[in-house]
Amino acid sequence: MKKAVNIGLVGCGNVGRGVINVLERNRRIIEQKIGAEIKIGGVCDVKNLSLKGYSYTRNYKELINNPGIDIIIELIGGYEPARTIILESLKAGKNVVTANKAVLAKYWDEIFSAARKYKKLVYFEASVAGAIPVIQALNEGLAANRIEKISGILNGTTNYVLSEMTRSGVSFNVALNLAKSAGFAEANPTYDIEGLDTAHKLAILSSLAWATCIRLKDISIAGIKGVSEEDVFFTKHEFGYVIKLIGSAQMIDNSLDLRVEPCLVRKDHTFASVEREYNAVLMRGDSSGDVILYGKGAGQFPAASAVVSDIIFLGMQVVNGTAGKDPFVVYDPDKKIKLLPKGKREASYYLRFTAADRPGVLSKVSGVLAKNKISIASVYQKEPLIGMRKGVPILMLIHRVQEGNLLKALKEIDRLGIIKEKSVKYRIED
Amino acid sequence: MKKAVNIGLVGCGNVGRGVINVLERNRRIIEQKIGAEIKIGGVCDVKNLSLKGYSYTRNYKELINNPGIDIIIELIGGYEPARTIILESLKAGKNVVTANKAVLAKYWDEIFSAARKYKKLVYFEASVAGAIPVIQALNEGLAANRIEKISGILNGTTNYVLSEMTRSGVSFNVALNLAKSAGFAEANPTYDIEGLDTAHKLAILSSLAWATCIRLKDISIAGIKGVSEEDVFFTKHEFGYVIKLIGSAQMIDNSLDLRVEPCLVRKDHTFASVEREYNAVLMRGDSSGDVILYGKGAGQFPAASAVVSDIIFLGMQVVNGTAGKDPFVVYDPDKKIKLLPKGKREASYYLRFTAADRPGVLSKVSGVLAKNKISIASVYQKEPLIGMRKGVPILMLIHRVQEGNLLKALKEIDRLGIIKEKSVKYRIED
Repeated sequence: MKKAVNIGLVGCGNVGRGVINVLERNRRIIEQKIGAEIKIGGVCDVKNLSLKGYSYTRNYKELINNPGIDIIIELIGGYEPARTIILESLKAGKNVVTANKAVLAKYWDEIFSAARKYKKLVYFEASVAGAIPVIQALNEGLAANRIEKISGILNGTTNYVLSEMTRSGVSFNVALNLAKSAGFAEANPTYDIEGLDTAHKLAILSSLAWATCIRLKDISIAGIKGVSEEDVFFTKHEFGYVIKLIGSAQMIDNSLDLRVEPCLVRKDHTFASVEREYNAVLMRGDSSGDVILYGKGAGQFPAASAVVSDIIFLGMQVVNGTAGKDPFVVYDPDKKIKLLPKGKREASYYLRFTAADRPGVLSKVSGVLAKNKISIASVYQKEPLIGMRKGVPILMLIHRVQEGNLLKALKEIDRLGIIKEKSVKYRIED
Repeated sequence: MKKAVNIGLVGCGNVGRGVINVLERNRRIIEQKIGAEIKIGGVCDVKNLSLKGYSYTRNYKELINNPGIDIIIELIGGYEPARTIILESLKAGKNVVTANKAVLAKYWDEIFSAARKYKKLVYFEASVAGAIPVIQALNEGLAANRIEKISGILNGTTNYVLSEMTRSGVSFNVALNLAKSAGFAEANPTYDIEGLDTAHKLAILSSLAWATCIRLKDISIAGIKGVSEEDVFFTKHEFGYVIKLIGSAQMIDNSLDLRVEPCLVRKDHTFASVEREYNAVLMRGDSSGDVILYGKGAGQFPAASAVVSDIIFLGMQVVNGTAGKDPFVVYDPDKKIKLLPKGKREASYYLRFTAADRPGVLSKVSGVLAKNKISIASVYQKEPLIGMRKGVPILMLIHRVQEGNLLKALKEIDRLGIIKEKSVKYRIED
């Protein structure tokens, strides 16, 4: 049995410093669980660091080539050099812990093929939903289940923005600035706002759940930039819903439907009360039924909690000489999963038409819907709110419809010449 | 590498049949994860079984002494012979999966000492909160944290009863009969109703969280038998709270406060919307913050989901020859945890006094409270409801107070001779 576990930390920003802090602060309970001493054998960052007591380098290869280091912690994010660092670490016989959703989503097959080849482990709890142990729950706790659905609020930035819009009625831009001031949006939040970050996380969860390799291009992605304060206001006050960015993977007739999009959730839905930087994930297994996990999806210490928990279980296996003997991610690289053809998913929807203020508009709009066999659940036609765009908003909730049929009908309506801006649709999450 | 994992099933009631069903139904994905075939090498039950295709015995020793069997699944429940079966299985070199909270809560030290001695594993995800992977989350996913609090709705029967009382205003006895008809209360539900089942689960979670050995006698336990329809009605309609049976373990000034009791939870608290057989568990770590898990806490398939997921991860280790090399439960049998002295916990409370209908009662009651420095947050004095007991109910919410002070004041009030029945107090869960 090894007397100590030695880690090398690549990337020492906010989360990296959190990891060091947790390792030092909770050293006693961590070492009790590992069954050996834990050492930080080296820290690598491109910025000059002022970390007292730790061996520091700007060159990650020094850590990978250091035979004393057992586990490489990759916390730099992004595709490269993260991919190279992970692959070279595995090749050099190191186990890896990463918080990097982008690199996993893009190079899933390459990374886990390498892990299999070199009989090493890659743990990645922090890559999805911060402190919430969702990777483990899906991969281990629900392993007996055929997974039918995964859906969740997986991005702290967009959820912060939508929460602010819902709470105080401000516009998207104002809410985004509030999120920036609170430290929950980056200077360039494009990846978050456009739904890519959520899609990365959905790809990871889906690859795990269905033992396959989901790619970003398999996911239909829409961000929250187009969510207007009118939609937030009307869905909340007229219909009792909240708008959330939902990542959703659902098995329908043996085909997988994967999507990231702003959705309406009912006020009494668990997701409706998930505010700001909190995340929630629902997993539906054929035996378990719905299991929901909730907690902080972002922040220095929630992320460090997940990284250090991974270090503990990897460290324990390093100490006992078992690391890499049991695979962590099991999948068949040759298995092709069938994707649900675009437009085939059925759902209920919220629609908003901004109509010219003249007679007969509602009749024409509802006529086109009827012709396409789309059944209206409720309608509100309102006076325009002060300060909102011109035109009369017509709001509808419609019963379950195939997305393709709806898109066809909306195209037809937009061409009638009575609608002032492109009609808006949001799916209603079950 | 072994070509097959062979399990022996002891106890083939509702959950046992669920386990067989899940193993057969999801065989392909289960065997992919284990990396080998899974076989049911024998089934033991005291009742005659009509299970086609399985080797059947009435004597569990036949399974324990069968050298071909790798894992014993103990599903009989209760203290004995479950304890003996688990200990003999470990001694005979078998790994164990159990769903039995009673035996774990009572014989934690003996069972995990034996597991350590024989280098075998005992997995027990199904023992707490059914399908929800809470054991794993606490033991692995949050391992890096110093746990500050665990609280939860952990018993399906009592939650079903309280949900029915809240929803339709029926009495405890009527609600209990409804739970029985729905299959969520046993013929003799004493263990559930009196809070012992919740206490068993709380002992397991706390032993894991604080790497120690919590005993039932360390927990202050109150059941739900005394919850009246008046309390359910008044807390809901006058104050906006719901009554739930909460198991709670909280670290206060380095001392642990352990209790099971009916509590008020605010309508917007996550626990308030946990209905019927659902369970929810909150875990507060020093780095993670609050993590909440929610799902089905009872039922054949939710329990089978947890048992089979344990079988998968144990089976994988059996196949790779690693089973028992990494401990699953790490604790120090000599570590004594300090318990918070009785009466020292501070909380807000709901109080109900049933007063004689004459002048000056409220003044006397509030006088005693004031003398004991107990500060009233709100008061309602109501006309008695039709059909309710005689006397005028006086309802109060009081600000944070040390439990001991409150008990002293209530004793004094009950002795004033103006109160028709023993005053009622329920803690308000934060």
